[in-house]
Amino acid sequence: MLYCVRMEVNLPRDLDPEQLQQLKDREKARALELQHQGKFLHLWRVVGRYANISIFDCSSNDELHELLSSLPMFPYFDIEVTPLAQHPSSIK
Amino acid sequence: MLYCVRMEVNLPRDLDPEQLQQLKDREKARALELQHQGKFLHLWRVVGRYANISIFDCSSNDELHELLSSLPMFPYFDIEVTPLAQHPSSIK
Amino acid sequence: MLYCVRMEVNLPRDLDPEQLQQLKDREKARALELQHQGKFLHLWRVVGRYANISIFDCSSNDELHELLSSLPMFPYFDIEVTPLAQHPSSIK
Amino acid sequence: MLYCVRMEVNLPRDLDPEQLQQLKDREKARALELQHQGKFLHLWRVVGRYANISIFDCSSNDELHELLSSLPMFPYFDIEVTPLAQHPSSIK
Amino acid sequence: MLYCVRMEVNLPRDLDPEQLQQLKDREKARALELQHQGKFLHLWRVVGRYANISIFDCSSNDELHELLSSLPMFPYFDIEVTPLAQHPSSIK
Amino acid sequence: MLYCVRMEVNLPRDLDPEQLQQLKDREKARALELQHQGKFLHLWRVVGRYANISIFDCSSNDELHELLSSLPMFPYFDIEVTPLAQHPSSIK
Amino acid sequence: MLYCVRMEVNLPRDLDPEQLQQLKDREKARALELQHQGKFLHLWRVVGRYANISIFDCSSNDELHELLSSLPMFPYFDIEVTPLAQHPSSIK
Amino acid sequence: MLYCVRMEVNLPRDLDPEQLQQLKDREKARALELQHQGKFLHLWRVVGRYANISIFDCSSNDELHELLSSLPMFPYFDIEVTPLAQHPSSIK
Amino acid sequence: MLYCVRMEVNLPRDLDPEQLQQLKDREKARALELQHQGKFLHLWRVVGRYANISIFDCSSNDELHELLSSLPMFPYFDIEVTPLAQHPSSIK
Amino acid sequence: MLYCVRMEVNLPRDLDPEQLQQLKDREKARALELQHQGKFLHLWRVVGRYANISIFDCSSNDELHELLSSLPMFPYFDIEVTPLAQHPSSIK
Repeated sequence: MLYCVRMEVNLPRDLDPEQLQQLKDREKARALELQHQGKFLHLWRVVGRYANISIFDCSSNDELHELLSSLPMFPYFDIEVTPLAQHPSSIK
Repeated sequence: MLYCVRMEVNLPRDLDPEQLQQLKDREKARALELQHQGKFLHLWRVVGRYANISIFDCSSNDELHELLSSLPMFPYFDIEVTPLAQHPSSIK
Repeated sequence: MLYCVRMEVNLPRDLDPEQLQQLKDREKARALELQHQGKFLHLWRVVGRYANISIFDCSSNDELHELLSSLPMFPYFDIEVTPLAQHPSSIK
Repeated sequence: MLYCVRMEVNLPRDLDPEQLQQLKDREKARALELQHQGKFLHLWRVVGRYANISIFDCSSNDELHELLSSLPMFPYFDIEVTPLAQHPSSIK
Repeated sequence: MLYCVRMEVNLPRDLDPEQLQQLKDREKARALELQHQGKFLHLWRVVGRYANISIFDCSSNDELHELLSSLPMFPYFDIEVTPLAQHPSSIK
Repeated sequence: MLYCVRMEVNLPRDLDPEQLQQLKDREKARALELQHQGKFLHLWRVVGRYANISIFDCSSNDELHELLSSLPMFPYFDIEVTPLAQHPSSIK
Repeated sequence: MLYCVRMEVNLPRDLDPEQLQQLKDREKARALELQHQGKFLHLWRVVGRYANISIFDCSSNDELHELLSSLPMFPYFDIEVTPLAQHPSSIK
Repeated sequence: MLYCVRMEVNLPRDLDPEQLQQLKDREKARALELQHQGKFLHLWRVVGRYANISIFDCSSNDELHELLSSLPMFPYFDIEVTPLAQHPSSIK
Repeated sequence: MLYCVRMEVNLPRDLDPEQLQQLKDREKARALELQHQGKFLHLWRVVGRYANISIFDCSSNDELHELLSSLPMFPYFDIEVTPLAQHPSSIK
Repeated sequence: MLYCVRMEVNLPRDLDPEQLQQLKDREKARALELQHQGKFLHLWRVVGRYANISIFDCSSNDELHELLSSLPMFPYFDIEVTPLAQHPSSIK
């Protein structure tokens, strides 16, 4: 089941640089892990913003929330979730 | 180059039914054509709305505008285009 | 899987009264049918508006879209869907 | 009498961890208490956000405000209340 | 129980003048009736708009919805309802 | 002359507790004073928010601004003022 | 007493041309009359829009509403009124 | 003096086709004329919308309003004007 | 050339009181200076807010930006500028 | 390929003055560099705001994102990107 997820990132400025880098590394590792698991289908950068548009494939709403809230940077995300369905004109 | 395109559809109610069906058929044909050409990468239905979220792959802004304005139902679309770039954590 | 669905109703004023009543009757019949099937868990009127807040229980996004678009008055609805997940403090 | 209540949670980042955990524990205890009293009918997590959609059953506006403002995390909530009424098509 | 109700009026322009005047008369009669019953506590005109801010005193959300939807011009209102509670600094 | 005033309260979290309580006491005293003077006609709590909807009766815009800016918590208010006029259907 | 009034004009397209011209003439006449009476202090065109920003000087909210609703084109205006007060740094 | 002007075009659907084409031709002719006069510096299409972002160079606000309102399709435009000034980092 | 300028003031709370008073004094002095020069035509307080609506008369957009950015409190202003033109019904 | 980019600047107040000046110098140097490369076609100040409207000419969305995120002040920008296409009435 697909969801379009837009994440705006608002990192606090007073994070210790090293702490910040670790956070970003853990975030990237988790994102790669989810992509390799096939849950995180697409991840694109919104041009000009510290934001992304992503497509998740999850078995349920609960699973999606677990995955999103498992992202290390989740506390600093402002997230909008749009549930998607099959489009009658889609060839996929 | 990728773009996320959200299309809200506002079809006028006073279209002659036959005319309307032809319009929808032409729209579907054009959408299929663009998908087979690889321009129209993804087409998903927004749950609960006569709207879609799509991903286009075009060589330029101009090409994207040509494709979108070539859709038979273009006059009845309210479209938002978000240009996308490569995300550093994407495995694609 | 639960979804919170808000439906604002915008019925056109030029519908023939009889046609309108039939539409409302079919809408009510379909709503009752879905409630008895256990898909349409809750249906509440928003005070002061021709609108409702509903809770649907569906197996997938696609099923929810099918149900919503099967409602006779769907063309006259402005719908917002919020996917819901289990809350850690909920006793249900 | 039913109300739909949406709560967005904005916890300050500089709360002492222990203090924060106590706050969350007291919040959960209060939420469970209200649910067992039948005042807090439904509590769902909004997917992707530190937010919930809840249904309260109170005898008056004043009682609802007392319950909401009695929640330990009330100072950190951004709350929208939508009063609900019986829907003519509801089977409940 | 008190509610603040804001009503924006959008009368269609193609109503037959006589029909329109009857509608306004019936609306005024109903508004006077509710005020005399003590349900419709205050009714003020928003300066510069065909809109009002009103205070209703009802025993329940359902009663408020019945009263509002009983207003002859209800189909042409865009209504926002804000439930009110006792303020700790109010002398009333 | 009547005005509808909505005040959203955003108290800073880092105010010294004692200072904060004095501020609230002075605010309450001023609000009571204005109510007894007949300037501050109505004061209601917006359910679920640290906000109020009030009705002021002042001789001029300037007087209203003086009263509002004289409220000790004025620096922490986000205020919207809606000037009100006599409604043709009001019995008052 | 001063008010800043912004008026967006939405004239229906199906008005008979002659009727429309008469409406505009009556509107202009009324505007000139109010300006000569000193009620309508300033009237400026918003660049690029069929809209104006005006300053009215009235003795009360009620008078302002009477003046505004006396404008022939009032039914086609979308009006926002901002009550103004003396600014401590103004030399007037 | 430069202005950024965004024009969203909302052409009514019930215009006679021939009339519509003449309107578009006159609009194009006027746009070309203004560009050749150096008033209409830049004219770009907003991708996916019947809208444009333009840069005008005018001697005054009044001149800009005259030019914009002289565009044949002006009645069907929803225009936002942003006055521009020299940027300290611009090489022009 | 006239501009309507709305300024919302957001002074930081942690400014040293003396520094703050000096800032306000310099702001007032500059505002008086510009008014006496005839650049700053009108300055009104928005009732209930730390905000003003002003009318500036400048020879160009650039001059207006210079004046506004020369105001000592400019860093703490949230400003919206609306360029104004002569209204055909204005007697000035 | 052209893009219209609006940048609102929100510099934190607690930056060390010297650090801030270096940041601004590096920002200006980078902006000049991009303009001389022909990537940064136009850069205008929005009157009254610490904001600009710019036109970029880039070969791809990715290039634009690289350029924008290479600006030293990028972390403090709130950016909206509007992809532009050739307008049929443009003489360029």
